[in-house]
Amino acid sequence: MTIPNFGDSLTALRDTTPLIHCITNYVAMNSTANVLLATGASPAMLHATQEVAEFTGLADALSINIGTLSSPWAEAMLLAARTARAHDTPWVLDPVAVGATRYRQEVCADLLALQPSVIRGNASEILALDGLAHQGRGVDATASTDDAITAAMALAERQQCIVAMTGERDRVTDGKACYTISGGHPLMPRVTTLGCGLSALVAAFIAANPDEPLSASSAAVACSAAAGERAGETAQGPGSFYVALLDALYQLTPDALNHFARREVRDAL
Amino acid sequence: MTIPNFGDSLTALRDTTPLIHCITNYVAMNSTANVLLATGASPAMLHATQEVAEFTGLADALSINIGTLSSPWAEAMLLAARTARAHDTPWVLDPVAVGATRYRQEVCADLLALQPSVIRGNASEILALDGLAHQGRGVDATASTDDAITAAMALAERQQCIVAMTGERDRVTDGKACYTISGGHPLMPRVTTLGCGLSALVAAFIAANPDEPLSASSAAVACSAAAGERAGETAQGPGSFYVALLDALYQLTPDALNHFARREVRDAL
Amino acid sequence: MTIPNFGDSLTALRDTTPLIHCITNYVAMNSTANVLLATGASPAMLHATQEVAEFTGLADALSINIGTLSSPWAEAMLLAARTARAHDTPWVLDPVAVGATRYRQEVCADLLALQPSVIRGNASEILALDGLAHQGRGVDATASTDDAITAAMALAERQQCIVAMTGERDRVTDGKACYTISGGHPLMPRVTTLGCGLSALVAAFIAANPDEPLSASSAAVACSAAAGERAGETAQGPGSFYVALLDALYQLTPDALNHFARREVRDAL
Repeated sequence: MTIPNFGDSLTALRDTTPLIHCITNYVAMNSTANVLLATGASPAMLHATQEVAEFTGLADALSINIGTLSSPWAEAMLLAARTARAHDTPWVLDPVAVGATRYRQEVCADLLALQPSVIRGNASEILALDGLAHQGRGVDATASTDDAITAAMALAERQQCIVAMTGERDRVTDGKACYTISGGHPLMPRVTTLGCGLSALVAAFIAANPDEPLSASSAAVACSAAAGERAGETAQGPGSFYVALLDALYQLTPDALNHFARREVRDAL
Repeated sequence: MTIPNFGDSLTALRDTTPLIHCITNYVAMNSTANVLLATGASPAMLHATQEVAEFTGLADALSINIGTLSSPWAEAMLLAARTARAHDTPWVLDPVAVGATRYRQEVCADLLALQPSVIRGNASEILALDGLAHQGRGVDATASTDDAITAAMALAERQQCIVAMTGERDRVTDGKACYTISGGHPLMPRVTTLGCGLSALVAAFIAANPDEPLSASSAAVACSAAAGERAGETAQGPGSFYVALLDALYQLTPDALNHFARREVRDAL
Repeated sequence: MTIPNFGDSLTALRDTTPLIHCITNYVAMNSTANVLLATGASPAMLHATQEVAEFTGLADALSINIGTLSSPWAEAMLLAARTARAHDTPWVLDPVAVGATRYRQEVCADLLALQPSVIRGNASEILALDGLAHQGRGVDATASTDDAITAAMALAERQQCIVAMTGERDRVTDGKACYTISGGHPLMPRVTTLGCGLSALVAAFIAANPDEPLSASSAAVACSAAAGERAGETAQGPGSFYVALLDALYQLTPDALNHFARREVRDAL
């Protein structure tokens, strides 16, 4: 295994402008749309039970984020995920704070049963989700990163999906192989919903590169890290960082992404 | 017909600070409020059925955008539009993606019956809405711009309202006369919800200039195009473009708007 | 009474990274999260009745803002506030536009009965809330600032809470003592939801400084005014002002805050 040509994945995204159906939280809606538009995809946010399935049927990929969950939204998420599965449309699950409440765990268990193509979360969320899949294992907030990697690979294998686990170092795995992506910038966790936006970006990359979900998901994560690194060069705080990040996603060339990948991506844990 | 004094319309807006009741989508709420505040109007977002009619009765104009529609919101939109009509308060309809699902078409048909003062949409939305008004004509996504103009004028005449159709060139018509507005910037479609914000800005302009809805709607569209052109001079991508657009709306003088209009506005198709 | 060491309050916030449960309006969600993250607190937005009480029990403080109120949200607010009170968790009420409709007055009356630790609003809102507490006194939109101060102190005394009233000059009172805070910048009212974000920041400051609610609330208000003043030095309009404000909240040092306080804060009306 070597580092794939992430630049080609980015080119495929820009050439096809995939339509991404986003069912996401209220905090992340605007920034998620802007991340997709800046990179070259086309976002659509809608969730009414009267239309959600009809629309998922038109979309190139679906991205579900449970951040500001409530009953009508959970119903919409299940309808959309079921439709995505029926149409073989790839879909991404972002299990925000799944460890925090029983309600989140119940909704995520229902969503996991509908077999997301990719799960994108931080280490705590992946650990919580893996515990959930095991039915009973507790969530250990003090778990080491190595534990989280083991959980990520186990979850990916059991669910037969990609797990993209982001943090100081990002890991993307299909349960067998794993890419480790460094880079990014310390200001990223000081800007809200960048992870949520990345989940939708993963959906856009797998829509445009349907035959290579592991490599396409890794390309999305690398894209975000490369743009974050670039944004950090000029940012004076989280306000200017976010502005510069959208500019950097827009300006990022396939060559620059490959150049970043040669420096910051490893095909190992 | 010659080009009206758009600068005077902008001055009227700033002198009266109209209160604009916005029932809009989750993605657009923050940016719509900021577009109104930057230009000089006063936004208010609320939608609970317990208060929505009471509040519309206090507002100077109403702006309805169906982007992230659901049952309780559709109910609020109908209550508010009915109140606006009863109070002779001008109101704007933004029929986001009306062609995409049956549900959107049904809600828009109900809203059209309450006679919006202005419909603001892109060419696909205007074509879909015109087809809806005809009851049966299909939506042709590959229709030419000329077809869209014909539809816009027909829709405006049938509904006895203004249609503001935005795209590479914007057209504003009352079914008889038509202004064509150029300018703007290629980065505008790469920033989310600028069209949604423009719909609310149209509401603010017609509130401040109640006797000249065609000219006031055109002034709002020109205001956005002029600010976009200015923002494009310094922007390095969609992030800095949005920031510069809000600054430009704030800085735009009546003279600069008239100067832009002399260059980019024609009183013909 | 002298000016407290606001810098120490800011240091306490950054040292403890308090988790702030925000139940706020759709317009303010993203900016509120960003204001908290930039300053050094940790935001969480969730509201489903299935989980809201469970989560408030985990949070260090709760911030409730009624901006885009509706029935399910009002229910969530009451559940969360009741939980906060049961856990002795401090909570802040932001009574957006409480004077505008009867529905807002009813919901605020229910929330006031659950004894917020701090009420943060503008002069009109404080007057309306004080009138509400009196059951019957009308809201006078033309009331002078002096009337608003009297109402703020009366409200604070009756509710046994802090009232943080913001405007051109901010006043923070516990009904006996009062701090007056100047500074800030004329562009602040031209950016949406800065007041909403400040309410959540007050929650973060009182969570980190639980024994000094008056001084901690004043420190939050001073923090916002100091950052606003700094942002105004480079801003060219409301777009760049907001970006610079987030940067300034991030960069603000305890020393700079104390320096600002010596210049702009008085321990009197």
